[in-house]
Amino acid sequence: MDKLTDSIRSIPDFPKKGIVFRDITTLLKNADALRTAVDLFTEKYKNLKIDKVIGIESRGFIIGAALAVRLGAGFVPVRKKGKLPAEVITEEYALEYGTDSIEMHIDAVKPGERVLLHDDLLATGGTMAAVIKLVEKLKGNIAGISFLIELSFLEGRKQLQEHEVYSLIKYDKE
Amino acid sequence: MDKLTDSIRSIPDFPKKGIVFRDITTLLKNADALRTAVDLFTEKYKNLKIDKVIGIESRGFIIGAALAVRLGAGFVPVRKKGKLPAEVITEEYALEYGTDSIEMHIDAVKPGERVLLHDDLLATGGTMAAVIKLVEKLKGNIAGISFLIELSFLEGRKQLQEHEVYSLIKYDKE
Repeated sequence: MDKLTDSIRSIPDFPKKGIVFRDITTLLKNADALRTAVDLFTEKYKNLKIDKVIGIESRGFIIGAALAVRLGAGFVPVRKKGKLPAEVITEEYALEYGTDSIEMHIDAVKPGERVLLHDDLLATGGTMAAVIKLVEKLKGNIAGISFLIELSFLEGRKQLQEHEVYSLIKYDKE
Repeated sequence: MDKLTDSIRSIPDFPKKGIVFRDITTLLKNADALRTAVDLFTEKYKNLKIDKVIGIESRGFIIGAALAVRLGAGFVPVRKKGKLPAEVITEEYALEYGTDSIEMHIDAVKPGERVLLHDDLLATGGTMAAVIKLVEKLKGNIAGISFLIELSFLEGRKQLQEHEVYSLIKYDKE
């Protein structure tokens, strides 16, 4: 998977000083790298009878939707507060300072459906932990959690309970 | 394509009174409708040697990315101001009150590359007209412009110059 790692662009001091931002747009625009990433996720999940892929706004929509189509599943967006037009359920999560919240349509997942959660990046895991709670409220069955990139030094997996986490690209230090 | 139209949820008075919002999440979560939509776009564009699909934040990322993978192309996100981490080009466009702006990475498209533009909805066409200008700045070759939904009574096509516009679902009145 070195080809994938090499396709990521690292940008120092974005969005603020001291942070190295891992830019996935250089992977996405590379047709070969994009296809390889979707192939690897498809291989991992193709036998799990996934009903829905849930992608998190907004970078999680990209690979999440492509993967849904490849798996023959539906796609469900999790969005920031106020963006979804019909009845929603909401979950708050902690930020460095204060809190934020995410929403999912209340009819997005039916009880017992097998769902795969996807986001581009696993950092501290706070957002994905909130998504797990949303899916649990709707009695969905979480079959897996996937990320393009994992910042493993932040130990975000610890927030994701007993669920299996799969990431294609890992950084073990800042 | 009635199956697709039937999968759209219409929500009166969202985001404000008098607007009927066409909610695509009911299409996206339906595996059969999602696949049908991507199949129709793939059939339309598969022989055009598309290098990159450009999707507009954030609902345009969903079908746009799935389509990029199906066409063997790369995917390029166009985002709101300040979201992209590397060097960008920017274009302003008019809103009902005031202006907004969108950005694309300056290295997202190479001169002469064949690009397909995608968004979920064609309304007045202002955003897509700005995306056309971004691609022209980078000397990309626009091979087509696609939308899931077209509000044809708003005549947004008129903003999109001589380019071929293809939409799967049309509403000819509010």
